[in-house]
Amino acid sequence: MASSDFARLPGFRDFPPEEMALRTHVFEAWRRVARRYGFQEYDGPPLEALELYVEKSGEEIVGQLYNFTDKGHREVALRPEMTPSLARILGERSRALPKPIRWFSTPQLFRYERQQRGRLREHFQWNVDIVGEAGVAADAEVLAVALDGLRELGLGPDDVRARVSDRRLLAALMRSAGVADDRLTAAYAVVDKVERETRERSRGRLMAEAGLDATGADAILDLFDAPGLDAVRERFGDREEVAEALTRFDEYLATLEGLGLGSFVDFDLTIVRGLAYYTGIVFEVFDARGELRAVCGGGRYDRLLELVGGEPLPAVGFGMGDVVLTELLRDLDRLPDVSRSVDWFVVVIGDDLRPRALDVARRLRDRGESVAYSLRSHAVRKQFKAAESEGARRVLVLAPDEAARDEAVVRDMATGEERTVSLASLDVD
Amino acid sequence: MASSDFARLPGFRDFPPEEMALRTHVFEAWRRVARRYGFQEYDGPPLEALELYVEKSGEEIVGQLYNFTDKGHREVALRPEMTPSLARILGERSRALPKPIRWFSTPQLFRYERQQRGRLREHFQWNVDIVGEAGVAADAEVLAVALDGLRELGLGPDDVRARVSDRRLLAALMRSAGVADDRLTAAYAVVDKVERETRERSRGRLMAEAGLDATGADAILDLFDAPGLDAVRERFGDREEVAEALTRFDEYLATLEGLGLGSFVDFDLTIVRGLAYYTGIVFEVFDARGELRAVCGGGRYDRLLELVGGEPLPAVGFGMGDVVLTELLRDLDRLPDVSRSVDWFVVVIGDDLRPRALDVARRLRDRGESVAYSLRSHAVRKQFKAAESEGARRVLVLAPDEAARDEAVVRDMATGEERTVSLASLDVD
Repeated sequence: MASSDFARLPGFRDFPPEEMALRTHVFEAWRRVARRYGFQEYDGPPLEALELYVEKSGEEIVGQLYNFTDKGHREVALRPEMTPSLARILGERSRALPKPIRWFSTPQLFRYERQQRGRLREHFQWNVDIVGEAGVAADAEVLAVALDGLRELGLGPDDVRARVSDRRLLAALMRSAGVADDRLTAAYAVVDKVERETRERSRGRLMAEAGLDATGADAILDLFDAPGLDAVRERFGDREEVAEALTRFDEYLATLEGLGLGSFVDFDLTIVRGLAYYTGIVFEVFDARGELRAVCGGGRYDRLLELVGGEPLPAVGFGMGDVVLTELLRDLDRLPDVSRSVDWFVVVIGDDLRPRALDVARRLRDRGESVAYSLRSHAVRKQFKAAESEGARRVLVLAPDEAARDEAVVRDMATGEERTVSLASLDVD
Repeated sequence: MASSDFARLPGFRDFPPEEMALRTHVFEAWRRVARRYGFQEYDGPPLEALELYVEKSGEEIVGQLYNFTDKGHREVALRPEMTPSLARILGERSRALPKPIRWFSTPQLFRYERQQRGRLREHFQWNVDIVGEAGVAADAEVLAVALDGLRELGLGPDDVRARVSDRRLLAALMRSAGVADDRLTAAYAVVDKVERETRERSRGRLMAEAGLDATGADAILDLFDAPGLDAVRERFGDREEVAEALTRFDEYLATLEGLGLGSFVDFDLTIVRGLAYYTGIVFEVFDARGELRAVCGGGRYDRLLELVGGEPLPAVGFGMGDVVLTELLRDLDRLPDVSRSVDWFVVVIGDDLRPRALDVARRLRDRGESVAYSLRSHAVRKQFKAAESEGARRVLVLAPDEAARDEAVVRDMATGEERTVSLASLDVD
């Protein structure tokens, strides 16, 4: 059998130790920050009933899934996102839980996407949700978790920008400009693409697809030429529905200021996100240079839990993927040194001392220190070479004369400094 | 759509926060101990080419897998074990790595097994391997990691027992009793079941399937009646091949003694494990009362890497599953208290103080402390109730008079003790 039969599947990653250490670095930052905000970690199965995803996203999603029929004739799929599992789990339990529910998770997710350079078929995603609180303080808290997660990894407002909008504000503006309720979704679709299309084309689409007249279409498109809340306030602030949405949005921004994160945030009406899912404030976080795909996206989705048969509960959350984030950290040189290291390497001069080496290793490990040693008889030089390749910070040398006095020499591998320690206490600090 | 359509798949677990906290408790113990022994963490994809498992285990395994054809017409399977992925990953890289390679992982594994009470279709498994070292010190080191992992979780030699044997010793004994080389596998199969069958039946099988005469069969079966290395030494120690295996085994046990773990270990010739896989010392760890399935199993497998096209390297490792282990920890009441908790809950008297609450929260979180607060305006009593349900250790109360003096009251929720702190320093310790 050719060894190529045993290749990794395309779009999947191996994590040898140097890559795993970077993944752990990111995961630990995510966990620390989520816990600082009082969130609790949960997880669900990587395999779920296919129906769970079809119900939320429609039949079209099946083409992008790793789905199959299992040996019990069930239609199943590898999870492409976490929110349906969250909704399912909460559907069983939310009634018994105090609200708001603050949960986070770091699942691996799978999509069968056409292979492109840099496009994977799996990634890990930090999922953070507050369920059971409709007020904008929850929206702000969730974005604060995302931004603090990035801060924890060494990214500041010059590195990443949060672009935030509000579906309800956008709806109010569209209605003010003359869009009928049944054309709102069509209007969102135009806004979603407004940055990538000419004004002329967007104008034509707003008229043809969203049913606006030329004046209404221009009023909307002018908002994208002079972006910012002030333009919105000035031109549409007298409409009650718009004024209400602006008040809510101001409170949201003030809360982010209060949390010390205002400098990361830009108002951006072009942020729409998935068409049928979000119901309020939405956001995406991008690298400041705009070179990569979104690092993170989220918003309020107040109707999802009901949809999968649970208690009707307002919810707000985000997902942050590890792939784009790690790419960004690498580009900006913010990844830590993950070279291999152990606290101690025990070198033995003469096999008679091996039992004492085991004893030293045991006692240091019992203190929580990491210890390695050669697993077979080697010359001292070779043992030191092994200590170096393990990245040992200290080498403890067991030699006959010193050992007879219950002593050993400890060498600091960074400084080369040596000192004698008592084998009874192993006291080096 | 009935909500039952959204049930979890049978044999899969959800991990709501209380279960996730226990999983994290176990995982963190595993990671701490592996690192103490100088092991580095790695991971591979949960989906691999089906062929990788068939090559190692034969076509029979397909019936137990979650396998399917992906949208690119590839035959794939959810990983049922980690070792084939390890072998594949090392196949690409081992030549560039210093030996021995000490790697560990904590993958989720999947098997489509017939549903039985307590039998799941997924579990997490601590995989620990040393690759590139043939000596018994590596065998001892690997078992030491397993036992220290259990010790780290509060289990001692009265709770768990390691049953160890050696395939080479067993082979030497079988050959001494008269088993031909091509019948060794058949003889192992009898030994594997010797505890569960009558002596009469085992005797018959040794004669019929392993080709022994009555004297040979009795000589082997006598070893199981008077277990222990002494019986082996006494009856077969004059055979050179047996004597060599005994010397090696003595060194193995002495190393475990040296590492302070000898009290966990029993010699047990009935431990055989998978038939075609292991090549040397093998072991299983059981609860001392013998009520549960094995907590852990492993041994030496010197030919696997070669089999999947890699560098021929000796290897020794184990897998420890989370399901039986957690069951045992629960039975013995060794699971920690995982009730919800945060370091701080900030209570606000009057919404004017909300910005100061956000500032306090931000500063405490920047110190690494966990902080929650009500996300909407609530009466003080209700805020204290929320603090309790979050498991807050301290409540910081922002009230108008104190805040005007840049002070706040901090209540210790365990003792009820209150003290005034400066809002500038937030210095409570």
